[in-house]
Amino acid sequence: MSDTIAAVATASGVGSVAIVRVSGDNALDIAKKVTKRETFSPRYAHLSSLYNQNDELIDEAIVIWFKAPHSFTTEDVVEFQCHGGSIVAEKILETVLFYGARLAEPGEFTRRAFLGGRIDLTEAEAIAKLIEAKSDETAKILARQMKGELREFVDDVREKLLRAVAFAEVTIDYAEEDLPDDIVNNILHQLEEIELKIGQIVSSSERRRGMIEGFKVSIVGKPNVGKSSLLNAMLGYKRAIVSDIAGTTRDTIEEQIRVGSHLIRIIDTAGIRDSSDTIEKIGIERSVEAIEQSDIVIAIFDVSRTWDEEDEQILSLLEKSGNNKEIIVALNKIDLPKKLDTKKLEQFNPLQLSQDNKAEQIFSELEKRLSKMAQGDELLLISARQIEAVKRARSAISQAKEPLLMGELEIFTFHLNDAISAISSISKPVDFNDIMDKMFGEFCLGK
Amino acid sequence: MSDTIAAVATASGVGSVAIVRVSGDNALDIAKKVTKRETFSPRYAHLSSLYNQNDELIDEAIVIWFKAPHSFTTEDVVEFQCHGGSIVAEKILETVLFYGARLAEPGEFTRRAFLGGRIDLTEAEAIAKLIEAKSDETAKILARQMKGELREFVDDVREKLLRAVAFAEVTIDYAEEDLPDDIVNNILHQLEEIELKIGQIVSSSERRRGMIEGFKVSIVGKPNVGKSSLLNAMLGYKRAIVSDIAGTTRDTIEEQIRVGSHLIRIIDTAGIRDSSDTIEKIGIERSVEAIEQSDIVIAIFDVSRTWDEEDEQILSLLEKSGNNKEIIVALNKIDLPKKLDTKKLEQFNPLQLSQDNKAEQIFSELEKRLSKMAQGDELLLISARQIEAVKRARSAISQAKEPLLMGELEIFTFHLNDAISAISSISKPVDFNDIMDKMFGEFCLGK
Repeated sequence: MSDTIAAVATASGVGSVAIVRVSGDNALDIAKKVTKRETFSPRYAHLSSLYNQNDELIDEAIVIWFKAPHSFTTEDVVEFQCHGGSIVAEKILETVLFYGARLAEPGEFTRRAFLGGRIDLTEAEAIAKLIEAKSDETAKILARQMKGELREFVDDVREKLLRAVAFAEVTIDYAEEDLPDDIVNNILHQLEEIELKIGQIVSSSERRRGMIEGFKVSIVGKPNVGKSSLLNAMLGYKRAIVSDIAGTTRDTIEEQIRVGSHLIRIIDTAGIRDSSDTIEKIGIERSVEAIEQSDIVIAIFDVSRTWDEEDEQILSLLEKSGNNKEIIVALNKIDLPKKLDTKKLEQFNPLQLSQDNKAEQIFSELEKRLSKMAQGDELLLISARQIEAVKRARSAISQAKEPLLMGELEIFTFHLNDAISAISSISKPVDFNDIMDKMFGEFCLGK
Repeated sequence: MSDTIAAVATASGVGSVAIVRVSGDNALDIAKKVTKRETFSPRYAHLSSLYNQNDELIDEAIVIWFKAPHSFTTEDVVEFQCHGGSIVAEKILETVLFYGARLAEPGEFTRRAFLGGRIDLTEAEAIAKLIEAKSDETAKILARQMKGELREFVDDVREKLLRAVAFAEVTIDYAEEDLPDDIVNNILHQLEEIELKIGQIVSSSERRRGMIEGFKVSIVGKPNVGKSSLLNAMLGYKRAIVSDIAGTTRDTIEEQIRVGSHLIRIIDTAGIRDSSDTIEKIGIERSVEAIEQSDIVIAIFDVSRTWDEEDEQILSLLEKSGNNKEIIVALNKIDLPKKLDTKKLEQFNPLQLSQDNKAEQIFSELEKRLSKMAQGDELLLISARQIEAVKRARSAISQAKEPLLMGELEIFTFHLNDAISAISSISKPVDFNDIMDKMFGEFCLGK
């Protein structure tokens, strides 16, 4: 018998509807007390008055009972759809708690859905990320994962690995002679296919990690080259609807900007925001750090000044940066007389920024680069946990190939079992207490 | 045939569930397209995949069809309960709009509920205020009004007035002789009862208007008496959960503070917030203004300085202030040697504020005063529109009495019809286009 949990499931703030969700063995009993109604049809939207423990009317609301096991948590669930705002839902929640429910911990509804076998970990993770999704593209990918796309991939790989292990075990038990070449080659081929596939998924997930967390963008360049002014122009640009991104405040050092259907996060390693009026303190070390952390680097050069040592250093950083990064080179202050020799920058196909058009040009270029980075039909691994597990599986598979060829089947089996356990941990870990606490603890309340 | 409207009905921000609501003749057709499902049972919570117009999966959601006329708007209504956050609900809304719905205007769902005869204006107003309700007490009163408490009062008064008019009309048509005294007295008595009742409701509503809008509190006193420091102590006080009141930002000049189950709004006519470091510019005129606008006045006197002309002026303002206001007199800096002659203040039973206890003392006193002001079982009129209408009815009734006694039944009937039209306008105005646009335009979106 599980205890009964409750929480407000909708976002706080002014809205016309709010939902209080209750799950557990007492959910229906509690609903009967709150509504003074005796009978409920499963999944039927009952219009009912709600009363607190002192029989005072709280609200008129829609009440729906999801009978176990046909609910999100697989337990009895009751949802109260009441009038929005901050008070009514709170009053209903208080009443429900008075009648014996306890406040749900973050992620606890989803945890119960997992424990009840309704969803696996990949689906739970997709739900968590979907709630925080900041772009259409990402939401689309997550919706597919919530329907089991990643789970199917995991199941497929596991099945192939299990078959290889089964072959090995049969061979160990029954045969002393040499292994038949065609079977070994067949297994080897399958393992290599899996390795390749996993490799593609990992590198495409790492390239596209910005789709989950927002793509990290840094603006580098020597002092007074126009970094702050570009950032301000970007923040003020008409398409950069910053305000409707939940949790974004202008207080945080990191600025979040919507670019087309993507979100970018300005990594302010260089202290761009601090330095508007004081002497800029950017050093070459800070640029190194900024570039390292970014998915996209915007490097600015001032055409009204001559090329100097600092420009040279920035250029050399750009040339050395990894090929998983997008580099945008921008020539600033093109309204002023040109003094800069820009020959060395031509390899980057630089943008020409004037006072009037800079935000527009940068946004248009960012959109191109973001589309390029977000491209890909491969499965997207959406958490460090998933990437870690897949990499572990790949490495174990890789270690298993040599023993297979040498006929050392025990060692082959050992590595393959390791791979199976790693890949399985993505959807249904054997020893999952640690993962669970960490994972569900990151959920928002009421989920 | 009405067009079909749609909006996100839950508050924006991170939550686990969001709702997209669609109302109108095409609601069900649209739901079929979005879900690719052919049949819906009324009021049944269907778990369904949702697809956009390009057949891409948006989400798994609960879909409920409220069949006309058994819905909030009395039209066909479909609700999509999807995963929360900012993206998913927006995607569903876009798809619904693509299939021919249009974005609802603020309050448009409630307007349709009114036009469909599902609710009257008093209930519509109660719903609007309930969503913004900031205290438990207020939410309770509004929940009762949503169930028709004010409408019943209006119906009752109207019926009595209609009977009086009917009597007069019968008498005009059929009798030439003197009116029978007992009937006249009976009607007169009834009218006086209504007048009395309306008077009580109006004055109690005016006293309690802070329950809807927040009680207005001002802090007055001569310069450097400790006004800013008291305000800051109040804002920092543990029970003053400012942050969970929707729409409150520290940028606004007006500070909103929760005190027990009530909300107070600090009226900063004196510029308390501006003057922390500069020379305080409070003049006697500003105090007059502050006191006039407040429900509760906190007047501070500094016991470490001698009584002077400015203290005298503040005192005289307090003595002259209306008796609908609560006055809290506070003696500040009682840790310092006492120089102030406080005899003239004893009539106010002053609080003694030390550096450590001032917020606590003020909060405890405010709670007492607020309970006193919020007291009352009378109906609460919740908008200026309602108060205005009731006052007009009372004045018309008052004007009708004299003609009744004089036997001038046409004039009597004229005034009484005026009263009937005024009181009726509260729930079902005859000519309501202006009221409607104004009233429903103040709703939040999706309601």
